[in-house]
Amino acid sequence: MGNKEQKWAYSEPECIKRLLSVEDAMYVIGGKWKLKIVIAVVTGHNRFNELQRTIKGISARVLSNELKDLEENGLIQRVVHSDRMPVVVEYIKTEYTKTLKDVLDTLGDWGIKHKKKITGK
Amino acid sequence: MGNKEQKWAYSEPECIKRLLSVEDAMYVIGGKWKLKIVIAVVTGHNRFNELQRTIKGISARVLSNELKDLEENGLIQRVVHSDRMPVVVEYIKTEYTKTLKDVLDTLGDWGIKHKKKITGK
Repeated sequence: MGNKEQKWAYSEPECIKRLLSVEDAMYVIGGKWKLKIVIAVVTGHNRFNELQRTIKGISARVLSNELKDLEENGLIQRVVHSDRMPVVVEYIKTEYTKTLKDVLDTLGDWGIKHKKKITGK
Repeated sequence: MGNKEQKWAYSEPECIKRLLSVEDAMYVIGGKWKLKIVIAVVTGHNRFNELQRTIKGISARVLSNELKDLEENGLIQRVVHSDRMPVVVEYIKTEYTKTLKDVLDTLGDWGIKHKKKITGK
């Protein structure tokens, strides 16, 4: 396997555990849109139309489905302000959204570095 | 927005930067299979059939395509041992694969915690 063999390796049980846990994570936050929606909500884009404007290329139908998934997983909260006229619906971050901060930081940093590597900056 | 407002927030320029960098990352390592293949290769599953056995549910065609994508991005290396009979092909980790360690750790940890949250352990 050459001289560049890394120290980094998983044992077989660790491999299985990692496969399952990364699968669990990707099932919930993988795909093209979910993390982008979380980023936009955390930034303070809380209205449906605002989210659709901020997240380039997402259709209303897909955004609606993705928001439902994220809500089911506790990653955003749908709030209906029925005291306002017309009624206002907002999607806001929750206590639990915060658990994604490290994931977003790590993925974002890797994305920046990878783009530099591929494009030569 | 209630009393549970978090300190964690992105400014608008930071939001745009994050959206793009997370998109870049997910483009390369998002989806159902790519990180699972990386985990299996890092563990030492280096032959095609071995990878297919380890990664439950992946078809030969998809595995083949995913391996090509990962190779193009420098995340695995395809090595042909033409000195052996029959010729042996191996997929091995590279120096660059190591840059994914933090991503895998962070995502895996989040996946474990999230599963505990959803299933109540």
